[in-house]
Amino acid sequence: MIRTKDKGSAAERELIHMFWENSWAAMRAAGSGSTQHPSPDVIAGNGMRRVAIECKSVGDDKKYISKDEMIQLLLFSHTFGAEAWIGIRFSGRKWFFLNPEDLSETDKSHLVSEKIAEMKGLSFEEMINGF
Amino acid sequence: MIRTKDKGSAAERELIHMFWENSWAAMRAAGSGSTQHPSPDVIAGNGMRRVAIECKSVGDDKKYISKDEMIQLLLFSHTFGAEAWIGIRFSGRKWFFLNPEDLSETDKSHLVSEKIAEMKGLSFEEMINGF
Repeated sequence: MIRTKDKGSAAERELIHMFWENSWAAMRAAGSGSTQHPSPDVIAGNGMRRVAIECKSVGDDKKYISKDEMIQLLLFSHTFGAEAWIGIRFSGRKWFFLNPEDLSETDKSHLVSEKIAEMKGLSFEEMINGF
Repeated sequence: MIRTKDKGSAAERELIHMFWENSWAAMRAAGSGSTQHPSPDVIAGNGMRRVAIECKSVGDDKKYISKDEMIQLLLFSHTFGAEAWIGIRFSGRKWFFLNPEDLSETDKSHLVSEKIAEMKGLSFEEMINGF
């Protein structure tokens, strides 16, 4: 059985590779808990744009993102000078990229379902080409 | 005895903290070997500038940086759109920041000595204030 954490790391490494294949530089963050400061999972740039991405690899058809995670992503992105994105990869599907404001908000978290991702998410190519 | 790797991680965490204290966002990279792609040890930005830093924590009075490490740093920085810096912390001293071209070049590596760091290096404050 593949642990969720390993699956997440493998998905992030795949994403890093996709960026470099498209002439963007990308790097993965050290594991969360490494410092008490906010950090996205992946940061990438191409000399013109910078993107900070919170990555979710999902077995289910939906994923909750805590308000705290979202605040940390927005704080990092705003301070660094990068666009904030949620990158989500449902099992057996390609990546979707969503703007934080496209997620459904509940009391304690933000929800991204496969349906929302299909409706509002961008593909990797659309995201890096600035659609 | 503190392992070199742990010492390096502690120094990087200290640097991350210094950036945030000065209203820059900073993040540490996942351990090298995580992907085959170039990655600096630390990346930081403040909405205006971005810096990619190769960090060295040094017990000795000098440190060699391999040509390959330097090429990887320059490749990442150029592709991402960030300034490339070597951050070096000799035991019991503050950080020095050097431009890659300020290091002495030997056949197989670049050398940064405490003497070179004192002559050509910037303090953290000088580096973030763009001296």
